[in-house]
Amino acid sequence: MAYSLNQKIKNLTPYAPIVGHYDIRLDANESFLTLPDDVKKKAMEEALSSPLNRYPDPYATDLVRGFSKYYCVKPEYVTAGNGSDELISLIVGTFFEAGEELVMVVPDFSMYQFYAEVFGVKTTAFTKDESLHIDVERLCQYLIQSKARGVMFSNPCNPTSICLSKRQVHRMLREVPDCLFIVDEAYMDFADESVLSLVDDFDNLIVLRTCSKAIGLAAIRIGFAVAGEKITRAIRSVKSPYNVNTVSQKIGEAVFADPEFLMHAAKKIISSREHLYKGLLALHARYRGFDEVYESATNFVFIRTKYAKELYEGLLARSIAIRFMGGYLRITAGTQEENKAVLTALEELVKEY
Amino acid sequence: MAYSLNQKIKNLTPYAPIVGHYDIRLDANESFLTLPDDVKKKAMEEALSSPLNRYPDPYATDLVRGFSKYYCVKPEYVTAGNGSDELISLIVGTFFEAGEELVMVVPDFSMYQFYAEVFGVKTTAFTKDESLHIDVERLCQYLIQSKARGVMFSNPCNPTSICLSKRQVHRMLREVPDCLFIVDEAYMDFADESVLSLVDDFDNLIVLRTCSKAIGLAAIRIGFAVAGEKITRAIRSVKSPYNVNTVSQKIGEAVFADPEFLMHAAKKIISSREHLYKGLLALHARYRGFDEVYESATNFVFIRTKYAKELYEGLLARSIAIRFMGGYLRITAGTQEENKAVLTALEELVKEY
Repeated sequence: MAYSLNQKIKNLTPYAPIVGHYDIRLDANESFLTLPDDVKKKAMEEALSSPLNRYPDPYATDLVRGFSKYYCVKPEYVTAGNGSDELISLIVGTFFEAGEELVMVVPDFSMYQFYAEVFGVKTTAFTKDESLHIDVERLCQYLIQSKARGVMFSNPCNPTSICLSKRQVHRMLREVPDCLFIVDEAYMDFADESVLSLVDDFDNLIVLRTCSKAIGLAAIRIGFAVAGEKITRAIRSVKSPYNVNTVSQKIGEAVFADPEFLMHAAKKIISSREHLYKGLLALHARYRGFDEVYESATNFVFIRTKYAKELYEGLLARSIAIRFMGGYLRITAGTQEENKAVLTALEELVKEY
Repeated sequence: MAYSLNQKIKNLTPYAPIVGHYDIRLDANESFLTLPDDVKKKAMEEALSSPLNRYPDPYATDLVRGFSKYYCVKPEYVTAGNGSDELISLIVGTFFEAGEELVMVVPDFSMYQFYAEVFGVKTTAFTKDESLHIDVERLCQYLIQSKARGVMFSNPCNPTSICLSKRQVHRMLREVPDCLFIVDEAYMDFADESVLSLVDDFDNLIVLRTCSKAIGLAAIRIGFAVAGEKITRAIRSVKSPYNVNTVSQKIGEAVFADPEFLMHAAKKIISSREHLYKGLLALHARYRGFDEVYESATNFVFIRTKYAKELYEGLLARSIAIRFMGGYLRITAGTQEENKAVLTALEELVKEY
């Protein structure tokens, strides 16, 4: 007899990053902005003076304080994580007992389903409307009837770029009070419908935020879970004691100490997205290549097209990487030059159809 | 109806770090050595010249290469993690299906049991001999009879400081080939009994290593899981894609590029531990305060004493933090001055008994 892996992990395939070099990367919804040199320098000095041989602050106290101040939430409600990825996997892996159902709202960020599978958590799928919007009334009914223990979705949604209003999420929290709502607001710096302020009133809400998008710090992996006292206590209890490294804490602190940079960055990215969106709309009006260009509340634009694969490959051949998702494409807003390059390349491709 | 947390996480208490300032910290088995200034500066410059707005390399390729070269293992067998903590939680959380048993060898590092509980993995306990050694024959029988799916232990052991020989672990791998052995070698830089070289021959072995002890980089959270191809594929599949941040990758790379520093550091720490151990033995010979001082294969010394609490508190009152564990004390080897200070303080305390 030899050791054999369990069924659930036996046939998984490791995450395959895009390999090879591409001049323009618009595939991962990263910020195209880099930190100002003075912020970077300050962060590095702080980091260099920290003792690297000692474990980090388990609660990333100063980083959490900076986040809390910027977003006007109580630091007691905030837990820092190694990217929101860690927090997603932790919450999915530990908040659901065997047999309890976590509802996925599809299409949505694929990692929710992935973590549920690897941790053996049962999921069911609630499918969005054909327009890719969530019908809030129908979802409430579904959650009640299925006796779901929790529901998880991104808002604004990755990949659809569509945003539920704060009012809509509020309504669901009220109507299904025994169901845990895990709302991933990774892209909420680009919209204005956050439910962060509701964690005080609802004990069935966890809001996730990240420094990887508008904040522009994907490299250093910082995310936050925001929830009321009871849930925060549980998240802090199940997390690894030293989950956020000292250097990332220091860099994050330096960045949150510069709120003007942050607000300016979000505005610049939104303006880039508008430019990209309008450019894509113009192509849609002029040619037959796209079926729909979705209005975006994020830093990317989502397109429905039956030529998705051809367009994706055509762009790759021009050294531009975007995200191919079945009959859809997802394009991150980049610098002016990057947007121009992708629009020009797409025009060359779509005018053939 | 309101949302209520599940039983398994409802009554957990968040990790409570030692609060307050203590002049001497010998409680967390950290290295007392700091990086040479030139290595630190080079590492930080590398780190901060990386694009912080882009996601890290998902496979920490260069870091893994550095580790592999230093420890003479194939990079294809190595997965980097956000500290070995992340890898422990990931393996415990995803490698065991409902109902399968993971065996804990007690006493051992408390986090193994902790992660099993929060991820709902069933465990049973195999108790060590009174001498705190593992009886390998008895453990093999136990694993076979209980049809255990896996067993997890630290070697050398934290907290006992005792080390199984490579031969003993080899024997268990052979005798129970259908049981997964997760061997945490966090302290193996201080001993010479690693089973790293066995991952090529055994598909039921995962070896965990860390940069937080001998390597002296607890702040930046880097750990490694080393296993054969099949298991490595599974670990890489279940991990978060971007689990190790770019800055830690760069610092780790810089340190592994300096193997002489690393070997020198391990030797210095071992010599400090010998100094501490001999000092404690001398106190044991002269006074009645200790019941046993264990010979150590790690960077700390473990003591059995019925006065554990009093001694722990007496040291805290003198601004020296060590680890109190029921009827035992665990003291990290520190600088010459720190060792001297803790020995002097302990002498003041034990001579009263």
